[in-house]
Amino acid sequence: MQTRGRETRQHILKESRKLFTVQGFRNTSISEIIAATGVKKGNLYYHFPSKEELGLAVLVDVRDEFFTILDDALAGENPIVRILNSCNAVMAMMEQNSFVGGCLFGNTALEMTDSNSRFGRIIQEVFSQWKSRVERELRQAVESGLLTSPIPADALASAIIATLEGGIMLSRVYKNKDGIEDCILAIRVLLGK
Amino acid sequence: MQTRGRETRQHILKESRKLFTVQGFRNTSISEIIAATGVKKGNLYYHFPSKEELGLAVLVDVRDEFFTILDDALAGENPIVRILNSCNAVMAMMEQNSFVGGCLFGNTALEMTDSNSRFGRIIQEVFSQWKSRVERELRQAVESGLLTSPIPADALASAIIATLEGGIMLSRVYKNKDGIEDCILAIRVLLGK
Repeated sequence: MQTRGRETRQHILKESRKLFTVQGFRNTSISEIIAATGVKKGNLYYHFPSKEELGLAVLVDVRDEFFTILDDALAGENPIVRILNSCNAVMAMMEQNSFVGGCLFGNTALEMTDSNSRFGRIIQEVFSQWKSRVERELRQAVESGLLTSPIPADALASAIIATLEGGIMLSRVYKNKDGIEDCILAIRVLLGK
Repeated sequence: MQTRGRETRQHILKESRKLFTVQGFRNTSISEIIAATGVKKGNLYYHFPSKEELGLAVLVDVRDEFFTILDDALAGENPIVRILNSCNAVMAMMEQNSFVGGCLFGNTALEMTDSNSRFGRIIQEVFSQWKSRVERELRQAVESGLLTSPIPADALASAIIATLEGGIMLSRVYKNKDGIEDCILAIRVLLGK
């Protein structure tokens, strides 16, 4: 693809992401995407043959960006610090958007997972990959004696991610950061910090 | 309202609830509601002048049912047991539907809270009332020496509810009860059990 084509594709992905995140996938029409991007209908369909293909491409794009930010944030002197840094990075992402929209994976999980298996599979994959990164840190923490928990590492990883997602939901409901902050306090307790 | 009118109203509420929970509010059309209920359009509009009014009435109906179940479940010999019993009751509600649909409050929170303030207010009220019930038990647990936590009772109540909501989301994504079960393990740790 030529540079200009790639730029158009990226532009469509970014604008559609905003609409899908705030309004939901089904509730966003092709006309709204055309209005928001300024791209002609033919050009839009050249890049994405259907709204479903566009939705899936947006999810893949957000997934790649999310894991880049997550992997950057999973830094620090020990696994517990790394997990907490990654939680704070997720909070920062949400705060950047003033808690409007929330987490596209969580939203799509609730909107699409029962009815569209292609969306469902990407969402499952995102949560599984995220979980395996947290689980890896937890295992290191246990092995190095930094963490003793009655919960097995895989279940604890899943609970940490769920807690964060629930916190994002509450922050979105109340439009403030209390929900996520309360959840990060809880995660600290789960990590024995 | 006559008995028959009340029955029709309840029937519309129950059928619409199923559609809204699985498909979302915006994605459910009046025609689908008519098809699912078998109620004539004029009769539907007699009970609910608009889809928005119907959506709000469904939320209020689910809210009332939820708090009845929650209050029944908040039983047991001490506040910690009561909170854990209420978490298990929420899991049982989700399991009853095989994790399809998930939590209507959570779904509506993510779908509607940014764009419709009337929906947003009911959702805020549900989470606030739920939180205040959990917080009341936590305060009793602290006062009676059953719980020592580094997290203040109001933040801990919020984190417990968020954790449960996140668990419901993961259970819905993977269509099994692992997500909620992992979260209940985490809640036990938060409660020092």
